[in-house]
Amino acid sequence: MGALHEGHLSLVRQAAAENAEVFVTIYVNPTQFGVNEDLDSYPKTWDSDMSMLNRLDAELATQPGHGRITAVFAPTTKTMYPTLPPDSSIPGVGSFVLVSPLGQVLEGASRPVFFRGVATVCMKLFNIVTPDRVYFGQKDVQQTVVIRRMVKDFHLDMEVKVGPTAREEDGLAMSSRNVYLGGRRRKVGLVLSQALRAAEEQFKNGKRTRADVLWMANDLAMRVRNEQEEMQPHERALFDVDYISLADPESLDEVDVIDESKGAILSGAIKMMPLEVTTKGEDCGLGDGKIAVRLIDNIILGR
Amino acid sequence: MGALHEGHLSLVRQAAAENAEVFVTIYVNPTQFGVNEDLDSYPKTWDSDMSMLNRLDAELATQPGHGRITAVFAPTTKTMYPTLPPDSSIPGVGSFVLVSPLGQVLEGASRPVFFRGVATVCMKLFNIVTPDRVYFGQKDVQQTVVIRRMVKDFHLDMEVKVGPTAREEDGLAMSSRNVYLGGRRRKVGLVLSQALRAAEEQFKNGKRTRADVLWMANDLAMRVRNEQEEMQPHERALFDVDYISLADPESLDEVDVIDESKGAILSGAIKMMPLEVTTKGEDCGLGDGKIAVRLIDNIILGR
Repeated sequence: MGALHEGHLSLVRQAAAENAEVFVTIYVNPTQFGVNEDLDSYPKTWDSDMSMLNRLDAELATQPGHGRITAVFAPTTKTMYPTLPPDSSIPGVGSFVLVSPLGQVLEGASRPVFFRGVATVCMKLFNIVTPDRVYFGQKDVQQTVVIRRMVKDFHLDMEVKVGPTAREEDGLAMSSRNVYLGGRRRKVGLVLSQALRAAEEQFKNGKRTRADVLWMANDLAMRVRNEQEEMQPHERALFDVDYISLADPESLDEVDVIDESKGAILSGAIKMMPLEVTTKGEDCGLGDGKIAVRLIDNIILGR
Repeated sequence: MGALHEGHLSLVRQAAAENAEVFVTIYVNPTQFGVNEDLDSYPKTWDSDMSMLNRLDAELATQPGHGRITAVFAPTTKTMYPTLPPDSSIPGVGSFVLVSPLGQVLEGASRPVFFRGVATVCMKLFNIVTPDRVYFGQKDVQQTVVIRRMVKDFHLDMEVKVGPTAREEDGLAMSSRNVYLGGRRRKVGLVLSQALRAAEEQFKNGKRTRADVLWMANDLAMRVRNEQEEMQPHERALFDVDYISLADPESLDEVDVIDESKGAILSGAIKMMPLEVTTKGEDCGLGDGKIAVRLIDNIILGR
């Protein structure tokens, strides 16, 4: 969807290491945004995206055995939705791919049309580009599970590759939406990656039950939330925990005990609320701290 | 779906006239049958189907410039639905293609999961076979409209070809389900093709409004229905008219006036009810006249 960052570039690098030709698609897909979501405010940074891709392509040119960026495919919405205007309503009119129940849990519980939009636009992009391999980032882990399932169930002749989550130095997962955070929310938002890391430690220490693995994450999230609530409105950044999940890597069913042979997906989502009171000169991020920001992150356990 | 008849064979002939290699797929797709529909009783005639295709292939071998039947693809349900068992419920779990609102009107109004099942299985078959051209019969006209829309909206790289409806000498549209009719219901069931033919005559005589075109069809259907209702249970064959429709060829919206540049689809569906009383030795069709039989038919006006 554009607004490229190092996470996207790492996927292009991985693709170029494994293929002679790399197609980059940039398209802010309207059908994956709910009617009340941030389609209009989603960052669009075409010129900077093209500069980044040009620099990366020049870098690839110097690397023996690497492929190059053959094309950037940035279609119009009329190309992607040739018949009816894109519809984000429920049930919605149009031609859609539904992947159920994978698309309804976790992110899909809060964003009911999201994976319908993602699966639909990916099916179209796959049919247009006919790639041998498609590259997705680990950060959107549920997306990778949905796309793998779609590729399998519809017999799409391509391999789904997943590249690791790119992170800032302090551990924050890179996301195009991070530009909205600003300093205060960015710092508090670290709670998500830290909570997941704490749960991962439990797993590394031999814990396998849901309660034993997740309590550290839930406890940390609750403590940070309580701390914030006790602070003054001009100092604090409030957030809601949407979910902290421990799920089967294929079915996304919540698991009570981690099956060693399968591992598990540890994931979470929090919603950073708009800043209540801001101070003049404060770094509040794009949108002046008024836009709620949903953060997601995950760690794969045992693989 | 097998239970081949001359209508299917005419499509294979057309495909062989236009392509060097013809793939025939035979698969009774469970997801297009509603939970209370006739999946279990749908005729399965594998040996006879293979004989017909073998004879046809021998015939094609004698025709210069014609292609041959390269393969018959008859997958298992585990191949077509590799992850979850096929589900016909609403909303249903699984990976589905939805084509809305085209799939909800006409046949879809009575059979809410039908076009979801059809679109889904066709998407899978198309991905497996990767055909240059796909052939469908005009008889299932809504199916042809849904598939054309799916191919366009998902950018599937193939051409959709539609072959004419094959008919019995008396005008009955050929259908695998006709074997359930028996003599009595077969004769009364002609009302559908006759009603559509009567409406077509109106169009040929210059009529263009909905009322002027359709009244003849509705009138004939009502008269035949009344006649049957006045007869004795051992002589009559009751039926319900599901719809008689005059619709836009692309949107399937009902039209008030036929646009000459676009034409219109005149279509209908009736449900032949089970015979109430049968006579010993009477030809009641497969299932002894106890299975309700849905008949559909259509005529394209002005193309």
